[in-house]
Amino acid sequence: MDQAITAANTAWMLAAFAAVALMVPGLAMFYGGMVSVKNTLNMAMMTFGGFAVVGVLWIIFGYSAVLGDSISGWGLLGDPFEYFGSSQLMTAPADDVLPPAIVSAFQLLFAGITVALISGAVADRMKFGAWMVFAGVWVTFVYFPVAHWVFAFDSADGSVIGGWIANTLGAIDFAGGTAVHINAGIAALALILIVGKRHVFPSPPRPHSLPLTMLGAGMLFFGWFGFNAGSALSAGNSAAVVALNTVAAACAGICGWLLAEKLKEGRATSLGASSGLIAALVGITPACGAVSPIGALIIGGICGVACCLAVSLKYRFRYDDSLDVVGIHLVGGIIGTLLIGFLADGSAPNGVSGLFYGGGFDQLWRQLVATIAVLAYSFTVTLLIALAIRATMGIRVDEESEREGLDVAVHGESAYIMEIIETGSTTVAVPADAVDGATAITGSSASPERAPTS
Amino acid sequence: MDQAITAANTAWMLAAFAAVALMVPGLAMFYGGMVSVKNTLNMAMMTFGGFAVVGVLWIIFGYSAVLGDSISGWGLLGDPFEYFGSSQLMTAPADDVLPPAIVSAFQLLFAGITVALISGAVADRMKFGAWMVFAGVWVTFVYFPVAHWVFAFDSADGSVIGGWIANTLGAIDFAGGTAVHINAGIAALALILIVGKRHVFPSPPRPHSLPLTMLGAGMLFFGWFGFNAGSALSAGNSAAVVALNTVAAACAGICGWLLAEKLKEGRATSLGASSGLIAALVGITPACGAVSPIGALIIGGICGVACCLAVSLKYRFRYDDSLDVVGIHLVGGIIGTLLIGFLADGSAPNGVSGLFYGGGFDQLWRQLVATIAVLAYSFTVTLLIALAIRATMGIRVDEESEREGLDVAVHGESAYIMEIIETGSTTVAVPADAVDGATAITGSSASPERAPTS
Amino acid sequence: MDQAITAANTAWMLAAFAAVALMVPGLAMFYGGMVSVKNTLNMAMMTFGGFAVVGVLWIIFGYSAVLGDSISGWGLLGDPFEYFGSSQLMTAPADDVLPPAIVSAFQLLFAGITVALISGAVADRMKFGAWMVFAGVWVTFVYFPVAHWVFAFDSADGSVIGGWIANTLGAIDFAGGTAVHINAGIAALALILIVGKRHVFPSPPRPHSLPLTMLGAGMLFFGWFGFNAGSALSAGNSAAVVALNTVAAACAGICGWLLAEKLKEGRATSLGASSGLIAALVGITPACGAVSPIGALIIGGICGVACCLAVSLKYRFRYDDSLDVVGIHLVGGIIGTLLIGFLADGSAPNGVSGLFYGGGFDQLWRQLVATIAVLAYSFTVTLLIALAIRATMGIRVDEESEREGLDVAVHGESAYIMEIIETGSTTVAVPADAVDGATAITGSSASPERAPTS
Repeated sequence: MDQAITAANTAWMLAAFAAVALMVPGLAMFYGGMVSVKNTLNMAMMTFGGFAVVGVLWIIFGYSAVLGDSISGWGLLGDPFEYFGSSQLMTAPADDVLPPAIVSAFQLLFAGITVALISGAVADRMKFGAWMVFAGVWVTFVYFPVAHWVFAFDSADGSVIGGWIANTLGAIDFAGGTAVHINAGIAALALILIVGKRHVFPSPPRPHSLPLTMLGAGMLFFGWFGFNAGSALSAGNSAAVVALNTVAAACAGICGWLLAEKLKEGRATSLGASSGLIAALVGITPACGAVSPIGALIIGGICGVACCLAVSLKYRFRYDDSLDVVGIHLVGGIIGTLLIGFLADGSAPNGVSGLFYGGGFDQLWRQLVATIAVLAYSFTVTLLIALAIRATMGIRVDEESEREGLDVAVHGESAYIMEIIETGSTTVAVPADAVDGATAITGSSASPERAPTS
Repeated sequence: MDQAITAANTAWMLAAFAAVALMVPGLAMFYGGMVSVKNTLNMAMMTFGGFAVVGVLWIIFGYSAVLGDSISGWGLLGDPFEYFGSSQLMTAPADDVLPPAIVSAFQLLFAGITVALISGAVADRMKFGAWMVFAGVWVTFVYFPVAHWVFAFDSADGSVIGGWIANTLGAIDFAGGTAVHINAGIAALALILIVGKRHVFPSPPRPHSLPLTMLGAGMLFFGWFGFNAGSALSAGNSAAVVALNTVAAACAGICGWLLAEKLKEGRATSLGASSGLIAALVGITPACGAVSPIGALIIGGICGVACCLAVSLKYRFRYDDSLDVVGIHLVGGIIGTLLIGFLADGSAPNGVSGLFYGGGFDQLWRQLVATIAVLAYSFTVTLLIALAIRATMGIRVDEESEREGLDVAVHGESAYIMEIIETGSTTVAVPADAVDGATAITGSSASPERAPTS
Repeated sequence: MDQAITAANTAWMLAAFAAVALMVPGLAMFYGGMVSVKNTLNMAMMTFGGFAVVGVLWIIFGYSAVLGDSISGWGLLGDPFEYFGSSQLMTAPADDVLPPAIVSAFQLLFAGITVALISGAVADRMKFGAWMVFAGVWVTFVYFPVAHWVFAFDSADGSVIGGWIANTLGAIDFAGGTAVHINAGIAALALILIVGKRHVFPSPPRPHSLPLTMLGAGMLFFGWFGFNAGSALSAGNSAAVVALNTVAAACAGICGWLLAEKLKEGRATSLGASSGLIAALVGITPACGAVSPIGALIIGGICGVACCLAVSLKYRFRYDDSLDVVGIHLVGGIIGTLLIGFLADGSAPNGVSGLFYGGGFDQLWRQLVATIAVLAYSFTVTLLIALAIRATMGIRVDEESEREGLDVAVHGESAYIMEIIETGSTTVAVPADAVDGATAITGSSASPERAPTS
């Protein structure tokens, strides 16, 4: 690999990084649209705020803990002091090596998005301060180790040791089925157990703005191409196949969920189209470099159908997974990770054959071990973190705040401030002298933002 | 061309592909904002759903039908079995050839977006199931052949034969003026004739959310750079000129529409700014590699003015082109395609001179033939498809559903669920015990989404 | 630098250009969400319209005035006739030179966005026609010269002379702290002085849609990576470090503002998260190539805190900086530009050491001179332009239009048209026969858009 090819790879990584950055507001809108209008801003703030905390920690020691040389060569955690402060990442590398700064920036977004994914499970009831603390602690004790296991490959010359899943076990996880989606999904379940159900459960409010949710899903769809095809770390045939597989799965996921919904409930919904899209993208994330385009259609379609069925489990088992983080990210992540063991096609970039392609059970058990390891570690440590936060600062808002809605109660804001004036034949009217009054949609007693303070 | 340049081209194509992907939600928002609040989700679903169906078919046989070797060398349709299932696209090509997987992924989006464009013409009244069937059948029998005509170039060594418009006729269509916009626009007209007018026509509801429409237009604007400059298939001077021409036309289109509107109606509107932007982007799509930046300003400006006038034709001729697909995509597409014959500048990437640049009528008649061919084929076949769907499964919702709005009637959802609580001096009030109640904006009798099913 | 590396650089510049393009609708949404629902469309139109005017002028003579050879070699303005009409930019350059067309397209967006930034300061009260004229005149007499000073580097062989700040003074401004943010911020202040306060000041309406503002902030966040890392003009280590520094600052800015707000007001708001994000991005813009990642955290954090405090200055000094253009872009731009003098790290891409890194005061005074020069020039000329517009065509709408809201009064549109129908237990009701009526949110007497005209 020479200097010019490295420049081409850098060009793609810069663009892929930027694309993934749009997933941050994309997730905020996706989740924000799905909650009631009383909790929209809080939901979006959990993404923005959690992402910000993670980003700061990433610069200080996160990169080092994930991609630094493995402590004692055990493959469990990178040395958090090797690149402490990240200043070393400014140095231009040899001509044929990707600049470490763009790898760091790209992986920073993975960390931030993984944390933010969890927030949807505890919508409408978690203390914002507790969430911010959780984000910082969770990324340190859960995400950084797991990302090291999965994303840190040994250096070619053996001088740098990476994580055990990537190197010793040899499970395939192209872009984060285990480290991102299973990890976030099972952490969501652990956190739900400690935070508890909303008082309105099992009759949650309907999504207050489905256009916002569809928009968010579309922004995630866009960013996902940076996420998956950027994980190739190069601008070659692998990234191209990954891009094709990702879009194939996405299309099949929409079709799958809509069909399942139509058969089960008699109608196809926009929430279903959005959810099927995301479920399929989750499922193809680990597998995007391991399967053929037809394999991608199968994974996407299965995830669409299976997650459509899985999201109602929360009513059966009575856990309040508010925005279906478990139902989509945990279930979709497991499906995608395990289906690699069956559908991996030796002609795909990963070059491994699964059970259906003559590879026997060899890859399947590796996928299974990786899945179980991440499930067990993430669930246990998340539970301990959540218990510690509940025991110290408290983790849940009081009942009155929950009833009032967190936007007003916690942030002193309302998502929408609309004046409503009659036109046409409707009966809703506002007196002429009230034109300057404001009807806050769901906002009671909100004080004005940025009011004069002097 | 060597390996490193191919890597650079791949880097740009990956980024361009991702950019075009954002046009999917962009179009959903653009159209979704323009309809009434009763049909918002249905409109967005027509984009998401139609796109998904097309994507699945593309992977199975669409790529092959468009970019496979022309059947019998006639230039009419690629061999749908040559790359059936797309597995062949995983193989890494020679060092100096763009990975076929990224070309396929890029063109998949073109197919999906072209189909979705049509949906705006039949807003508020088409059966969703009929739309999904139409999407699959239309892309197969209309888009795939026409895209083969226009986008399939003969291979350099003559071993692979492409489409007749690209190779035999030699019409210039850089990024899809004929295959995408004229094609979608005339198909929209044909579909309208079969589906019929809305009952409220000619007094359609106003756009329910112009911010959503402006947002969608802006997302399309962004993606269009991937669409046009990505069609260069390389990261060189051609793509750079295309990008510059595209943004030049876009700016002139906004100015043109706003001026026309101001002179005609006395005011400049946000719907006009959004529409002028899109009209100019449509017009520059075929011409972006053929004209100079000044030529791009002229095309953009003319499209802005002409489409501003053209969108009122529907009231004169009484066809219910609900969201002006005919007025913008058909009219803008024809203008852009034909103006190449006048404004093509020999110094531009296409290297052809039009009438005004000393090239005589040679290019103009080629542009005219391509336009007429696509118009005739697409109109005829679309009409037959629509007639067949109407005769079998039915194409239009019943009158009550149309009155109620398709979001509730078809999808069982409402776009927005807002609680309204008094603040300030307005009269709209909600009793304290009703805080947990929900006012569906336009939703009557909607059952809750994802209600408990166990 | 050879042909293949140039191709890689071109690939990144094409992607960066597209990313920056999304800042146009991003800014329209960011600002549009912050104003009342009566002025949403006008606000968004100021971005769309101003951008369009600037783009047309850029093609005609703007590129030439900014990047043309300096008139008389004085470093004050490029020759506006050298590339008049931009046709020369179509010519493919030597193999190792970036295509000028992509540089032009990239810089066109900078010009358009800088102008659009100003509009937030005069929300809710400026004549739309006056704004469009202001945009064209201001970009010509203020932006083009200042951008020449800052962005036009002398050619390597000395045959082309650039601007005095970039070359003679040697101030560091990687992506536009002076030319974009200080320039727009101080121009906003000058324009406010001439346009005057809104009648409701100092009790402005609350943001009508904070989700729209968060969305816009997120789109700006995405585009900013194209803006900053694209300013490297190459796909190498510099762009990578810039990307990392930019995301680091953004995260610290959110944390900084939220902390300051929490301490000062007792709560952290979504408007604060969005504002802190933007403030930090402003601050890191000039410095993104000059500091280490830790330096970026510091700049981002300081900007978050300082701008949080600065936005209340308008109430103390009673200037109606409606959407805090002064408080964020001017203050953040100055902080970032001056902090380079302290925090510049010799290991960063710019290779200069500031005061804290042993470089003494050498860089600091250069930063200070650049800041003062742009402040003085932009303030003075903007004031003259605004005075001239006020004296001729008038600059402000009449009081009745301001009270009614500019959307209806000026554009004849309403942002949202919603029907409200009862569900659940709320008291807001609409008679059955009124289902087809429409309640315009803040729209009174709006005539239907695109009504029949024949």
